[in-house]
Amino acid sequence: EIVEVVEAVLNRRRDFADVRVLVTAGATWEPFDPVRILSNRSTGKMGYAVAEAARDRGATVTLVAGPGELRSPEGVRLIRVETALEMRDAVLANLPMHDVLIKAAAVSDYRPAVVHPSKVKKTEGPLTVELVRNPDILMEVSRHRRPDQVIVGFAAETEDVEKNALEKLRRKNLDYIVANDVSMAGAGFAVDTNIVTIYGRDGTALALPPLSKREVADRLLDVIRDTRGKVGAGS
Amino acid sequence: EIVEVVEAVLNRRRDFADVRVLVTAGATWEPFDPVRILSNRSTGKMGYAVAEAARDRGATVTLVAGPGELRSPEGVRLIRVETALEMRDAVLANLPMHDVLIKAAAVSDYRPAVVHPSKVKKTEGPLTVELVRNPDILMEVSRHRRPDQVIVGFAAETEDVEKNALEKLRRKNLDYIVANDVSMAGAGFAVDTNIVTIYGRDGTALALPPLSKREVADRLLDVIRDTRGKVGAGS
Repeated sequence: EIVEVVEAVLNRRRDFADVRVLVTAGATWEPFDPVRILSNRSTGKMGYAVAEAARDRGATVTLVAGPGELRSPEGVRLIRVETALEMRDAVLANLPMHDVLIKAAAVSDYRPAVVHPSKVKKTEGPLTVELVRNPDILMEVSRHRRPDQVIVGFAAETEDVEKNALEKLRRKNLDYIVANDVSMAGAGFAVDTNIVTIYGRDGTALALPPLSKREVADRLLDVIRDTRGKVGAGS
Repeated sequence: EIVEVVEAVLNRRRDFADVRVLVTAGATWEPFDPVRILSNRSTGKMGYAVAEAARDRGATVTLVAGPGELRSPEGVRLIRVETALEMRDAVLANLPMHDVLIKAAAVSDYRPAVVHPSKVKKTEGPLTVELVRNPDILMEVSRHRRPDQVIVGFAAETEDVEKNALEKLRRKNLDYIVANDVSMAGAGFAVDTNIVTIYGRDGTALALPPLSKREVADRLLDVIRDTRGKVGAGS
């Protein structure tokens, strides 16, 4: 019995050997001028946890990370980006060489329409900022993906979590979506725990209890491992 | 001679004993909804370096810090804030109990006029965000300060650095302003070095070479130490 447990642990440890995993993490910064930015509350902890878990289980990991103070994980190829446009370019350029994409980054939907080359001096009155849509990276991924690739998105919602997540799963042709209600305590941004439900394109829904982000990452990798080969666009 | 050097080091180490120093650090986050924020590139490194330098020289230090992943410095009273309004309240509430205020935080000048309680769903077209001015914390400080207090501001500029810094020094009734050109390599945000000029209300200007932020902090404390008692509003 002990041998079986040890074997299970060892097997689990290496169950992503020869699997190339592309992970995105963190927020993007969308500059308004050289000082001011539009961003969001993501700190990158969830994506970094996924990258480290995949590395520990034997995967070859590329991590595309937005700005932030989290340390570079050892043994992971790190690509630093700042804006959604840079994130898009990095993801699309690296996608063909990977088997799995786990897109944990919280990419800004919008960016300022005008980027001022010098710091805009403040004035007394209000200020109106015009924002334009950033490209939808997962939508572009869904057009470039191969059927044998596994594509996982995240959905950070504050209401109608299941409905919004399932709609995103279908529209973006994902294999899985990890949905969390970022308005709950112990879930979402800048904390070390998360409360998620993993929805699959086959209709399965795995609701997990509150777990550390590392444990969430390992449960997600379990799901991907158990169904790899069975998923893919058009299957 | 060796004794003198050692004594100088030891004296310097404790030259802020019995001095109460209030430091602010980092950016603020101005929420647009529960996910999206307006912010700036400050990571808090300069302010944390000032807090640690003052602590090491014997000061009693209170650090008011914006969001971010920098660790809490040991032996410093840390007050975490998120928005400019929270920063203002924390600074004004703590100002009376301190001898020196070093305002290294990069507080957002503006905040979204409307804060949406739920995540705003994106639409296809552009989005216009109305921003309103945040209170000018240093301006309010200049109205509440005592003449025996030393007030130090920072100016992050990208052009006309000296002119903008001196104008801010006068208008906000500061004792010193630490000006840096954040468009220069090795200066400003998210790097470990800085290139600054310290301007005093008496007209002195101390241009420093590129230094670590910790060294900049110590040079600034040297200036404050050498002139404490000689400065103050109305002097």
